[in-house]
Amino acid sequence: MTGSAGGGGKRRGRRPGPSGTREAILAAARDRFTSQGYDRTSLREIAADAGVDPALIHHYFRDKAALFLGAMRVPDLELALGQALAPAGGAADPEQIGPRLLRAAALLWGDPELPRTLAGLLRTAATNEQGTAMLREFLGHAVLSRIAKALPSPDAELRASLVGSQIFGLLMARVVLRLEPLASLPVEDLVRVIGPTLQRYLTGDIGTGSSD
Amino acid sequence: MTGSAGGGGKRRGRRPGPSGTREAILAAARDRFTSQGYDRTSLREIAADAGVDPALIHHYFRDKAALFLGAMRVPDLELALGQALAPAGGAADPEQIGPRLLRAAALLWGDPELPRTLAGLLRTAATNEQGTAMLREFLGHAVLSRIAKALPSPDAELRASLVGSQIFGLLMARVVLRLEPLASLPVEDLVRVIGPTLQRYLTGDIGTGSSD
Repeated sequence: MTGSAGGGGKRRGRRPGPSGTREAILAAARDRFTSQGYDRTSLREIAADAGVDPALIHHYFRDKAALFLGAMRVPDLELALGQALAPAGGAADPEQIGPRLLRAAALLWGDPELPRTLAGLLRTAATNEQGTAMLREFLGHAVLSRIAKALPSPDAELRASLVGSQIFGLLMARVVLRLEPLASLPVEDLVRVIGPTLQRYLTGDIGTGSSD
Repeated sequence: MTGSAGGGGKRRGRRPGPSGTREAILAAARDRFTSQGYDRTSLREIAADAGVDPALIHHYFRDKAALFLGAMRVPDLELALGQALAPAGGAADPEQIGPRLLRAAALLWGDPELPRTLAGLLRTAATNEQGTAMLREFLGHAVLSRIAKALPSPDAELRASLVGSQIFGLLMARVVLRLEPLASLPVEDLVRVIGPTLQRYLTGDIGTGSSD
């Protein structure tokens, strides 16, 4: 928060023009968070890596947690989720949400940075209670509650958390652990194999008395 | 590997009698691995914590990886898995493996140490490629290949990895992240809700042309 860029530390990395500043901060944050975790990363280090004044981080991001979520590409996830749930501004047919969610996930995991991003999220969640709470709140508020709102059922929250458990396990198996043969299964096969699971969790009979 | 107990470091923790030595080593290893990860933990530190000669670790455990798996209670998991797949020495009815696996998982996650153990596994898997490979090999060899062997289908490996993805995601959601309402769902409700998913993955129609 002082006026000196980099806080006296040695500058590393690019010196961006105004338009690239936000992206440079995000890239530096992603490097730091994924290599050393949330707690041990300071905004001052990230500013030094990005070659910007630390005050600029506060201009673009509310706090460290907001920067972390941005660096972990959570906004991309929210965008993909929004498109799956509300295509072209309308609401998706509930009977099609399962396959739509899988295709949205598949688009995201085509990102070559995803394994590092997921590993960073997992390391943060596994390191301490604060990291666990951050991931829980993010999944709860940004992902599961949005899925739940798209469902007509009174047990929509349970249904959304079931969907979350299968997609999260799938991401772990395919992207982090690369368990074969699941890791190499083409997306359309995945939709055929796992789509019905998600669709049953979303709108099918799960034995809670509220199926369609 | 020298003869000096604790390697000159300050001894911490209990000084067990002969019968408790193995358990003391496991407890010390669990503390170290879960608090600082696999790579940064040395056998010498674990020996010092347990108050035993480092050579004793090699008496009980083949190498660091074997000690890690023991500390992470993987043998308990293998035992539970064996009981689910081959009750009383026979082979489980394939149509009952889904619910049996869920009940076995539920027994394991009643262990109050499980959240720390899972967090340690995840942190190890998320830290570097060696940790990822260790978890992948453990899941592949110790868990998924045993499930696959219990199935008559030619795509048994894909089916087993699908089961793994759902159970792994469920463990993450319930035990690590404690996502509600899934985290508090009673086990028998879980069997009713998720059992059919596992059973379809194991023996149902998954669109690969080999369903029963």
